[in-house]
Amino acid sequence: MRMAKGVEWALHTLLNLDMIGGGPAGSGQLAEAHGLSPSYLNKQLQLLAKAGLLISVPGPRGGFSLAKPLEDVTLLEVVQAIEGTARLFHCEEIRCCGRIGELSPPPTETCAVNAAMRRAEQAWHQALAAQTLAEIRTDLDGTPSTRRIVRSAFG
Amino acid sequence: MRMAKGVEWALHTLLNLDMIGGGPAGSGQLAEAHGLSPSYLNKQLQLLAKAGLLISVPGPRGGFSLAKPLEDVTLLEVVQAIEGTARLFHCEEIRCCGRIGELSPPPTETCAVNAAMRRAEQAWHQALAAQTLAEIRTDLDGTPSTRRIVRSAFG
Repeated sequence: MRMAKGVEWALHTLLNLDMIGGGPAGSGQLAEAHGLSPSYLNKQLQLLAKAGLLISVPGPRGGFSLAKPLEDVTLLEVVQAIEGTARLFHCEEIRCCGRIGELSPPPTETCAVNAAMRRAEQAWHQALAAQTLAEIRTDLDGTPSTRRIVRSAFG
Repeated sequence: MRMAKGVEWALHTLLNLDMIGGGPAGSGQLAEAHGLSPSYLNKQLQLLAKAGLLISVPGPRGGFSLAKPLEDVTLLEVVQAIEGTARLFHCEEIRCCGRIGELSPPPTETCAVNAAMRRAEQAWHQALAAQTLAEIRTDLDGTPSTRRIVRSAFG
């Protein structure tokens, strides 16, 4: 089980867009910044736009702009924009199948296994929702040259 | 991104083994309990044995037995037995690639994006490690007929 690499691409691209003033920047330019596949990055950018994190700006000087300040963008929003909102643990209700299922009355409550796995996943979601991209930017700004380098890369 | 269905299979199988006294029970019998594919379940049982959660008992009346009481088995151990210990978020260090990578000095610290994603994943691991299968069993025992049904199913 592994997160799509698009999550890393999306996070760095949002941070880069912020460091160059919010955009717009073309998807080709955003891809070149980290040597990424333009077509695969473009799919991630479309997902971010669909999730309301980017705005697609038409025209020859268009591209993608940040839709809101990074203070308002959590890790959870970016992960769910790229990966969707399906749970990691998908309960197939096997308790209702086979010999045990045949002998059991129809369940009236959530399976205890499912509930326990859900509690753990909620802790992950809460930790993702508790961190904004602005906080990550603060960490990056600890290295003074970061902004200068990103701006130079976008020339 | 979705967890292998083997995690649900493994959790229910460990709980069933406990309810019938710890085993041994054959993999075919354990599969029939929930109408599971015997060959796929057998792979999960081998993984649980490799992780020290089950003991493989040879012989005609052999099969798999619990290696330790459910008080000592956490959700994290079962998830990692089946899914491995690789992280959900795999950092490919794209910060070192492309135009930004060319302009940047070699990094001396963990990428802030990677560190933030790791913090969230640690919260998930902690929540998985904080729950034992004995606690799930307590929830199941809230339905008084559960143990009786499981024992009947293993006849």
